[in-house]
Amino acid sequence: MKTDKLYYGAAYYDEYMPYERVETDFKLMREAGFNLIRIAESTWSTWEKREGEFDFTSLDRMLDGAEKYGLSVIVGTPTYAVPTWLVKLDPKVLTVNHNGQNLYGPRQNMDIVNPTYRKYAGRMIEKLTEHVADRPCVVGYQIDNETKAYDTCSEYAQKDFVGRLKKKYPDPDAFNHEFGLDYWSNRVDDWDCFPDIRQTINMSLAAEYEKYQRQIVNEFFEWQAGLIGKYKREDQFLTHNFDYDWIDQSLGYHPDIDQYAAARHLTVAGCDIYHQCQDNLTGKEIVMGGNIARSLKGTEQPNYLVLETNAQGLTAWLSYPGQLRLNAYAHIANGANCVEYWHWHSIHNAIETYWKGVLSHDLTPGQTYRECSVIGNEFARIGKHIKNMKKSNRVGVLLSNEALTGMKQFPTKSAGSHSYNVVMRWLTDVLYDMNIEYDMMGVADHDFSKYECVILPPLYSATEELLKELDEYVAGGGNLIAAYRSGFSNEILKVYPDTQPHILNRALGIRYDQFTYPEGVTVEYGGKSSAAREWMELVTPVTAETLSPYTHHTWGKYSAVTLNSYGKGHAMYLATMFGGDTLREIYRRFFDEIGLAYDDSAPVSIRRGVNDDGNEVIFYLNYSKDEIKFTHNGESGVSLLDEKNVGKGGELCLPPWGVCIVEIRK
Amino acid sequence: MKTDKLYYGAAYYDEYMPYERVETDFKLMREAGFNLIRIAESTWSTWEKREGEFDFTSLDRMLDGAEKYGLSVIVGTPTYAVPTWLVKLDPKVLTVNHNGQNLYGPRQNMDIVNPTYRKYAGRMIEKLTEHVADRPCVVGYQIDNETKAYDTCSEYAQKDFVGRLKKKYPDPDAFNHEFGLDYWSNRVDDWDCFPDIRQTINMSLAAEYEKYQRQIVNEFFEWQAGLIGKYKREDQFLTHNFDYDWIDQSLGYHPDIDQYAAARHLTVAGCDIYHQCQDNLTGKEIVMGGNIARSLKGTEQPNYLVLETNAQGLTAWLSYPGQLRLNAYAHIANGANCVEYWHWHSIHNAIETYWKGVLSHDLTPGQTYRECSVIGNEFARIGKHIKNMKKSNRVGVLLSNEALTGMKQFPTKSAGSHSYNVVMRWLTDVLYDMNIEYDMMGVADHDFSKYECVILPPLYSATEELLKELDEYVAGGGNLIAAYRSGFSNEILKVYPDTQPHILNRALGIRYDQFTYPEGVTVEYGGKSSAAREWMELVTPVTAETLSPYTHHTWGKYSAVTLNSYGKGHAMYLATMFGGDTLREIYRRFFDEIGLAYDDSAPVSIRRGVNDDGNEVIFYLNYSKDEIKFTHNGESGVSLLDEKNVGKGGELCLPPWGVCIVEIRK
Amino acid sequence: MKTDKLYYGAAYYDEYMPYERVETDFKLMREAGFNLIRIAESTWSTWEKREGEFDFTSLDRMLDGAEKYGLSVIVGTPTYAVPTWLVKLDPKVLTVNHNGQNLYGPRQNMDIVNPTYRKYAGRMIEKLTEHVADRPCVVGYQIDNETKAYDTCSEYAQKDFVGRLKKKYPDPDAFNHEFGLDYWSNRVDDWDCFPDIRQTINMSLAAEYEKYQRQIVNEFFEWQAGLIGKYKREDQFLTHNFDYDWIDQSLGYHPDIDQYAAARHLTVAGCDIYHQCQDNLTGKEIVMGGNIARSLKGTEQPNYLVLETNAQGLTAWLSYPGQLRLNAYAHIANGANCVEYWHWHSIHNAIETYWKGVLSHDLTPGQTYRECSVIGNEFARIGKHIKNMKKSNRVGVLLSNEALTGMKQFPTKSAGSHSYNVVMRWLTDVLYDMNIEYDMMGVADHDFSKYECVILPPLYSATEELLKELDEYVAGGGNLIAAYRSGFSNEILKVYPDTQPHILNRALGIRYDQFTYPEGVTVEYGGKSSAAREWMELVTPVTAETLSPYTHHTWGKYSAVTLNSYGKGHAMYLATMFGGDTLREIYRRFFDEIGLAYDDSAPVSIRRGVNDDGNEVIFYLNYSKDEIKFTHNGESGVSLLDEKNVGKGGELCLPPWGVCIVEIRK
Repeated sequence: MKTDKLYYGAAYYDEYMPYERVETDFKLMREAGFNLIRIAESTWSTWEKREGEFDFTSLDRMLDGAEKYGLSVIVGTPTYAVPTWLVKLDPKVLTVNHNGQNLYGPRQNMDIVNPTYRKYAGRMIEKLTEHVADRPCVVGYQIDNETKAYDTCSEYAQKDFVGRLKKKYPDPDAFNHEFGLDYWSNRVDDWDCFPDIRQTINMSLAAEYEKYQRQIVNEFFEWQAGLIGKYKREDQFLTHNFDYDWIDQSLGYHPDIDQYAAARHLTVAGCDIYHQCQDNLTGKEIVMGGNIARSLKGTEQPNYLVLETNAQGLTAWLSYPGQLRLNAYAHIANGANCVEYWHWHSIHNAIETYWKGVLSHDLTPGQTYRECSVIGNEFARIGKHIKNMKKSNRVGVLLSNEALTGMKQFPTKSAGSHSYNVVMRWLTDVLYDMNIEYDMMGVADHDFSKYECVILPPLYSATEELLKELDEYVAGGGNLIAAYRSGFSNEILKVYPDTQPHILNRALGIRYDQFTYPEGVTVEYGGKSSAAREWMELVTPVTAETLSPYTHHTWGKYSAVTLNSYGKGHAMYLATMFGGDTLREIYRRFFDEIGLAYDDSAPVSIRRGVNDDGNEVIFYLNYSKDEIKFTHNGESGVSLLDEKNVGKGGELCLPPWGVCIVEIRK
Repeated sequence: MKTDKLYYGAAYYDEYMPYERVETDFKLMREAGFNLIRIAESTWSTWEKREGEFDFTSLDRMLDGAEKYGLSVIVGTPTYAVPTWLVKLDPKVLTVNHNGQNLYGPRQNMDIVNPTYRKYAGRMIEKLTEHVADRPCVVGYQIDNETKAYDTCSEYAQKDFVGRLKKKYPDPDAFNHEFGLDYWSNRVDDWDCFPDIRQTINMSLAAEYEKYQRQIVNEFFEWQAGLIGKYKREDQFLTHNFDYDWIDQSLGYHPDIDQYAAARHLTVAGCDIYHQCQDNLTGKEIVMGGNIARSLKGTEQPNYLVLETNAQGLTAWLSYPGQLRLNAYAHIANGANCVEYWHWHSIHNAIETYWKGVLSHDLTPGQTYRECSVIGNEFARIGKHIKNMKKSNRVGVLLSNEALTGMKQFPTKSAGSHSYNVVMRWLTDVLYDMNIEYDMMGVADHDFSKYECVILPPLYSATEELLKELDEYVAGGGNLIAAYRSGFSNEILKVYPDTQPHILNRALGIRYDQFTYPEGVTVEYGGKSSAAREWMELVTPVTAETLSPYTHHTWGKYSAVTLNSYGKGHAMYLATMFGGDTLREIYRRFFDEIGLAYDDSAPVSIRRGVNDDGNEVIFYLNYSKDEIKFTHNGESGVSLLDEKNVGKGGELCLPPWGVCIVEIRK
Repeated sequence: MKTDKLYYGAAYYDEYMPYERVETDFKLMREAGFNLIRIAESTWSTWEKREGEFDFTSLDRMLDGAEKYGLSVIVGTPTYAVPTWLVKLDPKVLTVNHNGQNLYGPRQNMDIVNPTYRKYAGRMIEKLTEHVADRPCVVGYQIDNETKAYDTCSEYAQKDFVGRLKKKYPDPDAFNHEFGLDYWSNRVDDWDCFPDIRQTINMSLAAEYEKYQRQIVNEFFEWQAGLIGKYKREDQFLTHNFDYDWIDQSLGYHPDIDQYAAARHLTVAGCDIYHQCQDNLTGKEIVMGGNIARSLKGTEQPNYLVLETNAQGLTAWLSYPGQLRLNAYAHIANGANCVEYWHWHSIHNAIETYWKGVLSHDLTPGQTYRECSVIGNEFARIGKHIKNMKKSNRVGVLLSNEALTGMKQFPTKSAGSHSYNVVMRWLTDVLYDMNIEYDMMGVADHDFSKYECVILPPLYSATEELLKELDEYVAGGGNLIAAYRSGFSNEILKVYPDTQPHILNRALGIRYDQFTYPEGVTVEYGGKSSAAREWMELVTPVTAETLSPYTHHTWGKYSAVTLNSYGKGHAMYLATMFGGDTLREIYRRFFDEIGLAYDDSAPVSIRRGVNDDGNEVIFYLNYSKDEIKFTHNGESGVSLLDEKNVGKGGELCLPPWGVCIVEIRK
């Protein structure tokens, strides 16, 4: 969604405050260049203290304040945390999951298909939307918050699941055969005997249940979008804050939601990107997460909203001076039109007391507020040149929930449930290091033809149709990089019983039928050497060239990396995982081969896009604690932050964690 | 409580014996100088095999034996382990806690507010007390054993808790506001909708529930004291064996009981101190634990009973020769009037088979018995000179259950639920290393005016009254050492929403509003350098002097340690944790500044006190496996163990793990 | 059981196949020299899709195929995995164990004493046996699969357990005394008050319950043997695939089954041996596991069946070329008459998808099939010379379920539930390294008189009768090696209350009453030195010679290893655990002392036996990745694989992972 300005804001919770501060806070916001707040998404019990008693006093106070101080407002539906009275009314609102019965307390502990929950949540959504729809400050709505099915295994959910299976497989024999349920006597020949799903040892069934859980999430979005749609103005948008798989920070695509499907119910995609800071800040999460968000509504609607990101964040995450500003521009450089912090003020009670906001607990302007103030006022000044950034990337990365689930059900050596995203990040982080920008694609929405190169993180689970399409893409002149385990199983995790990688073996020009964990094995290329890890397939080239064999006393006759010419295109296969430095050398060879240019000589991160005026804008981002000098790699332009001219090939200098943005004016 | 002799004894369990041994054992005890046994605290089912059938045969056998062999007896109430028939009668006697429903087997698994438990336990207490009260050998009673609420979350307890909350907060709005329950829709506007407490994400509520659990423990003490009081003789004392937070050994103050409140129901404080031995023996647990016990009845009644400590103990704990004797004197040096082992004989079945007593499983005198025999006979000989030791310490350490709970609910980087005690031990272990003796104080019983220096382990949770009192203490000439996070939140863990440390910032002369975990940060002072760990606040001095800034490329402008002159006193702040050697240098600076003398040149541990005759007694304790020579630091006196004279400045020599006690006779 | 040929085969699952392949597969098998399949043991739901509807179509297809292609068939009873309809019929079929209520999904999750399970499982067994008994290809039956009680703690089991206790102990006082139940008030004076066993803290009771669980396993074997016996032909054998305690591979004797008792219901013992490969392949698991299996039916019936072992196995286990063949001969060298892989084909769905068979998922001959083909055809050629191998070992190792349970209930420092088997493996792996072959013995079946040397892994729990018998064995000229903790407790884990090791102290010539964990302690012998670990007893020699004292500043006066002459024999005691190299030096001393010859100079593994023709056969096995040259240590003979003559003292050369078998023809 295009916007007429950059949004800069914070989540705001009047109801959490130790004392009334709306005027004070909004004044501070305006002074710092904030122009947006997000409210309401967690406070059902505040506005419906007892069943049916609605009181929007505090909501009105915030809206009045917002209008007074010129802040736009996103209103979230308060449905991800349920009131105590609702649980008293129907204890089954708290769901049962793989770990047993939930108790009250945490958010996101309810059964999203429980009828009681739906009835009262629906009423709340309507009351709220109706109440705020006419307020001028309200620019949009956020459906719920980081929505999932929370692993619901309730009786409602399981019954629904079996009903859908029954419809999909009218013939129980076909069902048992396809899912391999003769194994360990797990057959179901009478649907009424379908057992509790929670300890199934059949990964096809487990994966099917995870897919079901993603489907009810989609239906949940559709339901909320419908209710809000009854009241919302035409000019108000509908968004959602999608989040990510997580290892200490945003890691990769989320296993529990099909974001591409869910985003169909939205006007604009939003996301929550959290990352480490201090010496661990790299900017990689901002690009990875942003690239997913940018792809959710298709390449024609690339701009997205960062609805949550670190202010001070967790205790370990406190930023060094300069880092917040660097990150803000990194989001914009990637196509975001909004940078919104979670959250404005630090909270004085409860579990997120140490997830700090723009203001510390003393609620007075401190170091973080001062840095935000710089950002906010710069955004106001130069925002028109850098909003609605449009990308023309030549590399596309295919994301698949089914493959991700497959890699979770059958993980590699040590990466566990992150076995998919760890490879995805390996493949894309090296692109980042080489200043190659890339797009993401969902399986249902992909268009390979847009890209000179398509990258497959382990496409463990895929339909034959998709595999054939990839084959045709290469044959027709496309260039493919495929990671290990791609093409191994079908859409329900049944292994394809023929030559691996199934179908893809032709384009890749290889075959294998054995694999193991690498122990004492290395991969060498271009003068770099690194340990193989996680997984290794004993690949034999058929028509492919071996770029790197395994270095090992016994496995040395097999290939670790192969490159094949197939039809008009090229296909590279990575049969194991190894160091990023070695992969970078291999990428260089591949991209040189296919003639895809990149600038990995630069000591800074470079992002490019085209702005509303059709001008190219280049962002130089210094992700280091040292001052860096480098050469401008583009036509003459204007440095937007200091309004100086930058000549073609001109020298630039960035302070630690510094930023320079050059607009090439036509 | 003063005593007319040193007690030396062991817990005794006639009912666990593989064959009848009372005469044999008591004779061995008398020969070894034992004069005390503790009996009865775990054997309800022995004396009430079936409901209402009381049989005290074995009890009488022990009492008869004790009288024959001149042993004093402490009778414990057998209420911490329930009989099988009681659980059959009311299964709810086994409590529900945060981990779910308890099953039968372990001790301390019952619901102490269950009415059935109270009814039958009360009857047992009365029957037992009535039966033994007139026996001359019975000198006192022990209430229960290491009593807690065992995390009861039973329906009885939760209902009681909500009832008390309701009384405390007649206005639900005030309750919701104070506890911040709007957060994540957790409001309770109808007390009947109060949810199960066990998964609350509101740490204020969780802490309040822990406080409730400590309150019912206090009430449990009051109840038992009342029942015993119906029968006990005037000259019989009432005690309890308080224990400690635990990491492989006694660590610090216990989170689950307010020992100061519970001790009000007792005649004399008792404690269970367990510690590692062999190369890991330091004596620090004996001082830490003993100092807590010594403070429980106030400084006017300093003497306490060590009711349990290592005999052979756990497999890893077997003492080297000499260590048991060293420890026995260390207890006495600290103010104990009793050293009692757990336990006399090793047990032949069940979970504590490998927690060995004075006798090994062969039940014949071995190495441990022989060493005890030395101790017992020495105690008999010199006990009158070293009992009822009185201390005049100039340093006081403030202990707070609320702060401890706060640090458990919001732990630092890696110390988890021990985040409070780890700092408390850091602060006090360095005192120990410097031969500075110190007292403990409870929040409800403190008297700062007694001390030249008051030390605050992280006083995370504190009322404004307490913080103001600390401010006045410094202003009036007191000297304060405060650890990080002190003054951060109020008594229900709501963060104070103004300058940190709340109120204390004035006396400390500092402020901060940001903190993080230290990574690659060091603290340097007096030629020592060590890594900062667990927590670091970015402290800016206001009126204070920076003793040590952080050594770090970015955080170097903030202070790790500050010293402030305030009114007539001084206040030092430790904004992070670091190595003991560095802290020792900082302590030297501080104690020199305030003129508090100490003797940290000695290669041995030194303890001082005043005995019944008003004479100073100095204990020299060699906590090492090497022989040590050193100089007597006191007036001329008599070495009590070998009855030799020791001149002022005289040379002394201790063998490995050796002891020398000098009485300075007036 | 003697056989007329070597069996070589694989488990086969027609019902798991993605498409019909019986003909294809059996043809491939025959070509590769396979002559055996095992079928049916996991597919109850396939043949009884709905209660009472039996359909053996797929079974018949397999039997027809087997007969066409000349394969023998072992039919397993399909009772270790229950159908969904059975659980719907009686949810209690899924058992309750120490972790709570089982859900459907995994195998081996049922209550083997549940009457519903027994009723329907019994009917299935009879239907199946009746159906196949007359088929010529069916050579035998396998009862169930790796059977245990699966820790059942169901109401049926617990009631049964209490009933048996009541019968065993008519006097509750005697029961309480023997089990030490006065401890922590755990007495049971009314059998109706017997509490849930699951959280007992009384290890005697816990061990008794484990013994009960093993008893019902025995009864389960008896029950199945009886049902099969109604139908089976005289010439058909009855076997079972016993498995092993496990740490990443087969580790040692299994704690949950008395294999010696269970084997009484069988014609021939079988076993499942799984082990690591690649650089971690040592052959030790094949010998350890095989030696147990060889002993189960007594030394007169030594030959056993390896019913399952690695084909490709788990991902980490993929063999190097040559390893499969080496292992196949290692099994035969040890006395096996059958090598059967688990399994023929890799599975395309569910939890064992990555436990790969002879064929990979592509179901075409690959590297593994080709190597099997070599083995199968060699077996066909030379099998008659190496089947029915008979051993005359002079060393016997005593295995005890009770001792194993005791070491699990009271583990040593870090070995946890494996505390017994870790020592057993330490003691026997060094024998393996020295090329000393040994037998195993069960407590109920032992005959010490057969052996020149008896080795006791920690005989923690033993009757006085057994200890006396060991005493007499040594006195009469036997030679004993006893590990620490032997003789410590009686048959219900009650510690013997006199000099340790109980009774054995006389033969060993030592005593001790203290023990600890070794820290900084080493054991030195014969120029080797290694750290003591897990456990150390402070042993004082009485009549024994100290072979090695502890090397330590304080414990140095105690003995780590002692050797005693007693009557006509010798007894060695190992009071701690230490490095294998050091133990090997000590073994050398001991075996030299007692005159037991061995060949530990060889750089290869050597196995010896006598074949059907009464000829000695020597197997040379190269467990390394290097070529090895060595000298034939035997009379002149014929190398069976290449049919060359090998002279006495002749030079031999083995390639990496190579094998040479020399038959010394009379």
